[in-house]
Amino acid sequence: MAEFQLTDAGEAAADPVVGIIMGSSSDWDIMKNAVAVLEEFGVPHEMRVVSAHRMPLDMVDYGARAAGRGLRAIIAGAGGAAHLPGMMAALTPVPVFGVPVPSRYLRGEDSLLSIVQMPKGVPVATFAIGEAGAANAALHAVACLAMTDSALLEKLQAYRARQTEAARAMVVPPHVTL
Amino acid sequence: MAEFQLTDAGEAAADPVVGIIMGSSSDWDIMKNAVAVLEEFGVPHEMRVVSAHRMPLDMVDYGARAAGRGLRAIIAGAGGAAHLPGMMAALTPVPVFGVPVPSRYLRGEDSLLSIVQMPKGVPVATFAIGEAGAANAALHAVACLAMTDSALLEKLQAYRARQTEAARAMVVPPHVTL
Amino acid sequence: MAEFQLTDAGEAAADPVVGIIMGSSSDWDIMKNAVAVLEEFGVPHEMRVVSAHRMPLDMVDYGARAAGRGLRAIIAGAGGAAHLPGMMAALTPVPVFGVPVPSRYLRGEDSLLSIVQMPKGVPVATFAIGEAGAANAALHAVACLAMTDSALLEKLQAYRARQTEAARAMVVPPHVTL
Amino acid sequence: MAEFQLTDAGEAAADPVVGIIMGSSSDWDIMKNAVAVLEEFGVPHEMRVVSAHRMPLDMVDYGARAAGRGLRAIIAGAGGAAHLPGMMAALTPVPVFGVPVPSRYLRGEDSLLSIVQMPKGVPVATFAIGEAGAANAALHAVACLAMTDSALLEKLQAYRARQTEAARAMVVPPHVTL
Amino acid sequence: MAEFQLTDAGEAAADPVVGIIMGSSSDWDIMKNAVAVLEEFGVPHEMRVVSAHRMPLDMVDYGARAAGRGLRAIIAGAGGAAHLPGMMAALTPVPVFGVPVPSRYLRGEDSLLSIVQMPKGVPVATFAIGEAGAANAALHAVACLAMTDSALLEKLQAYRARQTEAARAMVVPPHVTL
Amino acid sequence: MAEFQLTDAGEAAADPVVGIIMGSSSDWDIMKNAVAVLEEFGVPHEMRVVSAHRMPLDMVDYGARAAGRGLRAIIAGAGGAAHLPGMMAALTPVPVFGVPVPSRYLRGEDSLLSIVQMPKGVPVATFAIGEAGAANAALHAVACLAMTDSALLEKLQAYRARQTEAARAMVVPPHVTL
Amino acid sequence: MAEFQLTDAGEAAADPVVGIIMGSSSDWDIMKNAVAVLEEFGVPHEMRVVSAHRMPLDMVDYGARAAGRGLRAIIAGAGGAAHLPGMMAALTPVPVFGVPVPSRYLRGEDSLLSIVQMPKGVPVATFAIGEAGAANAALHAVACLAMTDSALLEKLQAYRARQTEAARAMVVPPHVTL
Amino acid sequence: MAEFQLTDAGEAAADPVVGIIMGSSSDWDIMKNAVAVLEEFGVPHEMRVVSAHRMPLDMVDYGARAAGRGLRAIIAGAGGAAHLPGMMAALTPVPVFGVPVPSRYLRGEDSLLSIVQMPKGVPVATFAIGEAGAANAALHAVACLAMTDSALLEKLQAYRARQTEAARAMVVPPHVTL
Repeated sequence: MAEFQLTDAGEAAADPVVGIIMGSSSDWDIMKNAVAVLEEFGVPHEMRVVSAHRMPLDMVDYGARAAGRGLRAIIAGAGGAAHLPGMMAALTPVPVFGVPVPSRYLRGEDSLLSIVQMPKGVPVATFAIGEAGAANAALHAVACLAMTDSALLEKLQAYRARQTEAARAMVVPPHVTL
Repeated sequence: MAEFQLTDAGEAAADPVVGIIMGSSSDWDIMKNAVAVLEEFGVPHEMRVVSAHRMPLDMVDYGARAAGRGLRAIIAGAGGAAHLPGMMAALTPVPVFGVPVPSRYLRGEDSLLSIVQMPKGVPVATFAIGEAGAANAALHAVACLAMTDSALLEKLQAYRARQTEAARAMVVPPHVTL
Repeated sequence: MAEFQLTDAGEAAADPVVGIIMGSSSDWDIMKNAVAVLEEFGVPHEMRVVSAHRMPLDMVDYGARAAGRGLRAIIAGAGGAAHLPGMMAALTPVPVFGVPVPSRYLRGEDSLLSIVQMPKGVPVATFAIGEAGAANAALHAVACLAMTDSALLEKLQAYRARQTEAARAMVVPPHVTL
Repeated sequence: MAEFQLTDAGEAAADPVVGIIMGSSSDWDIMKNAVAVLEEFGVPHEMRVVSAHRMPLDMVDYGARAAGRGLRAIIAGAGGAAHLPGMMAALTPVPVFGVPVPSRYLRGEDSLLSIVQMPKGVPVATFAIGEAGAANAALHAVACLAMTDSALLEKLQAYRARQTEAARAMVVPPHVTL
Repeated sequence: MAEFQLTDAGEAAADPVVGIIMGSSSDWDIMKNAVAVLEEFGVPHEMRVVSAHRMPLDMVDYGARAAGRGLRAIIAGAGGAAHLPGMMAALTPVPVFGVPVPSRYLRGEDSLLSIVQMPKGVPVATFAIGEAGAANAALHAVACLAMTDSALLEKLQAYRARQTEAARAMVVPPHVTL
Repeated sequence: MAEFQLTDAGEAAADPVVGIIMGSSSDWDIMKNAVAVLEEFGVPHEMRVVSAHRMPLDMVDYGARAAGRGLRAIIAGAGGAAHLPGMMAALTPVPVFGVPVPSRYLRGEDSLLSIVQMPKGVPVATFAIGEAGAANAALHAVACLAMTDSALLEKLQAYRARQTEAARAMVVPPHVTL
Repeated sequence: MAEFQLTDAGEAAADPVVGIIMGSSSDWDIMKNAVAVLEEFGVPHEMRVVSAHRMPLDMVDYGARAAGRGLRAIIAGAGGAAHLPGMMAALTPVPVFGVPVPSRYLRGEDSLLSIVQMPKGVPVATFAIGEAGAANAALHAVACLAMTDSALLEKLQAYRARQTEAARAMVVPPHVTL
Repeated sequence: MAEFQLTDAGEAAADPVVGIIMGSSSDWDIMKNAVAVLEEFGVPHEMRVVSAHRMPLDMVDYGARAAGRGLRAIIAGAGGAAHLPGMMAALTPVPVFGVPVPSRYLRGEDSLLSIVQMPKGVPVATFAIGEAGAANAALHAVACLAMTDSALLEKLQAYRARQTEAARAMVVPPHVTL
């Protein structure tokens, strides 16, 4: 996997600040994009499969203990009738960031609506379908943390400056390397 | 309310066989159509607001006790990011019948997809958006019960025969009464 | 076909309790997921192609005889303008479980709406588009049967316990086998 | 009802050439637009409620006898999971013209897909959702009949000429009559 | 191409009864399914590319002469903003049968709506997106012709009988030939 | 009508530079928003009903003469299967600006796709569904004209400056006048 | 306006922590639901109309100064081609919470997609279409702030406890007061 | 790349009349279709990556200087939450022609709505999703320029005449070359 290097793949940080959960290990190809962002920013995190439909009591337990364990953000990805982000939001005051995982036939339209259309009172911050959404959920969580962490804010601003430079360096037609 | 008469409105039967749950009392206008069917067939039932997002632990408790309390079907209605039917299905082996309640802006398309697109392993039997779906969820539950209850099957067949007669009696242009 | 082994492929059980019908043999790749579930639970069943549009009188006959033959559930899959589940529901009091088979250009959105949006009075219990929906239709039928069959209920609970354990055993990043 | 005058409202012509059927008398407000066209062209017709879901055997009977009774076109309107046009097409070689009746929550998108997405081999000629579609189904049936009826073709050409003149006479801003 | 044999590929019959037109030669893969049906029924026909947007005056000419040339049906296929069927319907009293050709990004949803949603007064009989729709447009045209051609009606009934037999012969799991 | 004052309502300017055409006088409520913009900018224009489906030859004639008559932009509005903008684009090199008029049941989704999804080679510049789209089609035509008309460009810049000031003057909660 | 009482309506707090911006004063009816939440939690905030399309430079300025002014969250609402939330996210590292305001013809589907489908690198946390989304954007911002503000966290937990109690107190059929 | 030859690939013309901008170099495969048209017509142009979200200030600068630099049209392509065309339209009186670039999961539906649904006052002329839209945006810009450039108009008419001839030369079944 060339896109990024996991330094502690599959293992939780000692004191995770962000929990990344997903409904199935098959969501990994999407959700790894969130992990990569947290790695890049050095935000302690953990990754777990927590299936709303197959492990509902584990999900309740995860939610019940999230705040006490020091989690300050939960990134939750799921596809189809994607209930994990919304249920997690119901179970903890820790803010939940939802990622619509593309579904087989409806390409994530069902996932998106199942996550974003939460009723008043129980919010899920929702991001784009797929890889971009997973990365952005993590970036948004970083931004929220950075509001009280000036070192992290500096990192975020440097990240965005690099991003701007990379876009500025783009030419069309794209360079062809021989 | 002229369409039907509740004989035991708001009160649970002594030994309910069917539980009708909904995410909010604002779902009542839709869900009463399920109640009316059960009333008509004399199926003992109870009605409760069980909000997946605002009362998640009550929902877990309801699901955990459903089979032991003798429920043989649960009819669950919800709108928008409608998680109640799917979560109830995750919490009990009692079969769940889901009703997509129309949402304000997307008219129930979000509700429908949030209910029907369940992953393999945790089914929710889903019905049409709105009033028809609520009535049909109850009729389907009645049909399931009727497979081992010949008296109920007779009632169901009589109901359908009356329905056929009513359709046969329709004329166009519709009669105008003066 | 590695996913499951049919013990009596293509042949009806002596006294089928569940009928699995589909509009075309091309629906088999989806509908075999329903068959596999019934095999796993040991529920006697039969499988047939019953095309609503090309064999309408056979369909009527199948519906007319379903209850008398002892069927207690009919799982019907179809794609596009998917009329088979709804018509079967019109023809028998036996409860019908509908599976939207993905269509070529609209990926099953047409199939889903053609099955789920039934008018009041004639319900079809509808499940997700495709493979998950086929498996879940069978699981829901099993759950309905299990409400009066304690041995089957035990099997269902064991199935779900295994499913929970399998989800709990998932790790991310997924294991790579060499 | 000011828009048109039915000369034989609700009664069948002695030898109807076109059958207009609909799933419920509630479809009349849409389907009367088809009737009005046939009235205008003097095409003998009959109107009936034939519910696919509540009167399936009557539907079969209607289809089985359509050709023998001399019907040369059947206009069928239905809403939601709209199975009547497609099933009628399965039951008779008489060409079927389908009208998607607007549904309550999905405004006829479900009706349209349920009618138009027929599998190869059993066609339903489908028209626009609602009033325009009903009128056009009748106009198309008239055009088909007119291909072997020069008097009817003349009427059709005159109708279209009047229509062209009416459009040509339109001004904007529209005239205001005091 | 194994599915059918064109006996007079690309050439018009001496006195075509049905015109098959399409917006581009790239529509051929879909529209050949209509041709194959007319071949099978021995209905004299012609095939032409008539682009509404690139050859509008040719289109007008085709429409103006259609009735006089003896055409009794026009099958028109187009994709995207598919204007050919509707414009042809505006230009001739000959009935038009529209085929939504799948589009690159929206898979024919745009084609379908552009064809079916005609205003009152100018009908286009619309069929399913893609191959099935092309075949069905031809079958519907055949059915219309068969209403005054008993030999053709017999052929149509035989075709449908064969179709019914083929469906009845289907087994599941599908036969595997070695 | 308080929103704007037509100085020459319904009459063409002596030498119109912009033609505003629509499929029916019922489109006026939308299309008057385009007229109002041209009035405000003093751009000579004409307004006509030109129905693609009911007046196809008039449409051809309008297109054939558009360039010679000095028109430099054509604003075309239509609803449903909205063919007028695309056909006009096929008939003249004068650039066409399309306005999707909201349709009864699909609220302009059909109109939008029928207008915007033109094939390569025959463009229609498309704007938002409804009132905003009509005004913007005219504003875009004004901008195109302003590229070689410095007085008009000044007017456009002033218009936009006023628009900016109006937005800047907005407060929330909105002022309540007594 | 009975739903809530603004204590400082239209005026900014001395040191706002949350900025609430919207594209037009016509968005107020939706966005006031966000304001009400912040009022209830005593979070200092400001409200402004900042139109991305009519005041782009003001928008740039607002973004450029947001972090320096001490804003820790920006709630941005817009409808249709809703660019304000995404552009604000491009202009500041302060996290942006987007609210899709319902649009006239597409009921907010366009707003939702324009806000949520941001590319990787520039996230907008998106909430439900309309009133619920506005309230939830504010609740999510409160939750983010509460992660480093134990008093606010207590308030949030109390809010949610009250919400749970309110849901638990719901009965069906709803009480009727005489 | 056989479809067209760029004579000045990636370099701006000395005095560009049309600016072609896109959100990322990954949009090139679509946007090159616009470039090819301008090449064919000999319209001086420039091509740049201008990301609304990653280079917002560059975008503002580009817009602020567009009119002064002599640009008379800006063709802007973007995908997903596609804000570039609309923001550019907010920043300059130069008319903007928007191209919806297909997105990964929603195939450009999000891009289309994000571009076309602009509010009253700030128009973006929108074209089809993908390659056809890019070519057509350029053709429309050419047509606007041609209204005051008779040589260009002649070229445009010749282009369209060739296009008509090419369509007229199409046969079906398509020629097969050996």
